[in-house]
Amino acid sequence: MAANISEAEIRKIVENIIKGVQGGSENKWTSTEYNGRKLIGIVSLSTLVVSDPDTKISDIMHTDYVYINVYDDQEEVASQFKKYDFLAMPVVDKEHRLVGIITIDDVVDVIEAETTEDMELMAGIIDFDDNDSEYLDVPVITHVKNRLPWLLILMVAYIFTGMIITSFEEKLSEVICLIAYMPLLMGTGGNCGSQAATLIIRGLATEEVDTSDAFKILWKELRIGILLGAILSAFNFLRVCFLDRNGVLVSFTVCAAMLFIVIIAKVIGSMIPIVVKKVKLDPALIANPTISSISDAIALSIYFLMARVFLGL
Amino acid sequence: MAANISEAEIRKIVENIIKGVQGGSENKWTSTEYNGRKLIGIVSLSTLVVSDPDTKISDIMHTDYVYINVYDDQEEVASQFKKYDFLAMPVVDKEHRLVGIITIDDVVDVIEAETTEDMELMAGIIDFDDNDSEYLDVPVITHVKNRLPWLLILMVAYIFTGMIITSFEEKLSEVICLIAYMPLLMGTGGNCGSQAATLIIRGLATEEVDTSDAFKILWKELRIGILLGAILSAFNFLRVCFLDRNGVLVSFTVCAAMLFIVIIAKVIGSMIPIVVKKVKLDPALIANPTISSISDAIALSIYFLMARVFLGL
Repeated sequence: MAANISEAEIRKIVENIIKGVQGGSENKWTSTEYNGRKLIGIVSLSTLVVSDPDTKISDIMHTDYVYINVYDDQEEVASQFKKYDFLAMPVVDKEHRLVGIITIDDVVDVIEAETTEDMELMAGIIDFDDNDSEYLDVPVITHVKNRLPWLLILMVAYIFTGMIITSFEEKLSEVICLIAYMPLLMGTGGNCGSQAATLIIRGLATEEVDTSDAFKILWKELRIGILLGAILSAFNFLRVCFLDRNGVLVSFTVCAAMLFIVIIAKVIGSMIPIVVKKVKLDPALIANPTISSISDAIALSIYFLMARVFLGL
Repeated sequence: MAANISEAEIRKIVENIIKGVQGGSENKWTSTEYNGRKLIGIVSLSTLVVSDPDTKISDIMHTDYVYINVYDDQEEVASQFKKYDFLAMPVVDKEHRLVGIITIDDVVDVIEAETTEDMELMAGIIDFDDNDSEYLDVPVITHVKNRLPWLLILMVAYIFTGMIITSFEEKLSEVICLIAYMPLLMGTGGNCGSQAATLIIRGLATEEVDTSDAFKILWKELRIGILLGAILSAFNFLRVCFLDRNGVLVSFTVCAAMLFIVIIAKVIGSMIPIVVKKVKLDPALIANPTISSISDAIALSIYFLMARVFLGL
């Protein structure tokens, strides 16, 4: 039994392990059953050093240790380290044999790389090469390749936005001052949606929220949207009515549109990442550009609807 | 001299250190000069265990160690850990006395928190309480408080966008079909700017790029912008001319605007974080919403200028 070896033998094993990994940076070593080489427990070097020389390893080893499987995704490994605050974890194969060890300093690099990927995806950048090249080392043509797909997809989305406007074109020309508020309404909708989406995408990544929280999130964003929408509408009423002097009916049109746009943008922005996660895709993939183009179309539809209600267009 | 103590004494010191920190998770212990308690070197536990019992500490300790100052910002500490791949680092005060130790598992939490803060800032969310509360635990009113400031600031920015449109209103009513392409041009400009800004903000955070790289970045984004702008313009020409059948002159207006908007958005999007960093602010603070509202105003100005050039408006 490996758990019966003496301190002198342990010193030898530790020496070999440390030689083997060159840096000597890990603080845990692993005891394996010699027949089958199955991992049966772990002992930290610090425990070992301060324990009595006659103590059996089986008395000081932890058998309820956490381990990593050779087929685990690196993102999964990183989340295990974050959860348990270990400095090193054993890696085992299907037969539970020890095949390696991962130290937390490597995990830090993984966390950094995953974060960069998430941020890029959220900004509509797909890193096709995924070779961790630094920004300045990536050729212009590769930068173009990484950024083009989303921009092209969104251009198609803007065909629909264009169609919404075209269908309302003649009516717009009757109350031409309505055009001036289009960027305000589309922009605010996009920003509100991005705020909600970013919090949920990040929350899902750090496991702060889960897809099962969908209704709680929906309820929260609904109330946030109502409150924010009301405040922004009030400010805009002052602007449209008293600064721009566009009359009460145009002011009502803009402000009612603002209220509904903010509420819907908050709800949609928070729910899209949940739905994407639910169908097992990366929530960061359906990115802020998507949310802002969806909210553009919604913003215009609501705006023109309000124009019909308040201005009879 | 502390460097002359025997292995038995060391065992005692290690025992005390480990007792003191309860978890026993750090793998380095520190030798301090007894008179003055200045930090003179560090020895890793693993080196200690495998060295000859008669070896003097002064022979195996590293004197060229890296340390953390008690007044260092936690973000700075995290970047030191990322740079050197250590599992633990000593903390010293102004007189270079050892006052503590930081282990990398705490740093992982710091990295996660800083990343979340960066992402939130980039989406225009300011976490005033900064109490690391989870999304669902934060009250609605706090969510509103965190998200409102940027939305209000941007509403002011949209007053200028509105003024640009108002000044062009009458001319717009002459060629009403131009309105339909406003969301496309503003949206594409915003997305192009955000793509560039995100890469640079992240690059500055991971120290991949530096403010001194400004001209290299400018030159790269300029070429990326020209290439992307040309491709997107070509696609849009097909749409405006053959799908929407709005004539060659309107097509030229939209496509020329698209080309210049993409180029300028790429350049401005990449330069804003550099400038913000240069004046010692957090690049993530001047966020994507700002870049998209700036690029909205620029997009409209360029669009109307092109309308004057090609359509004589």
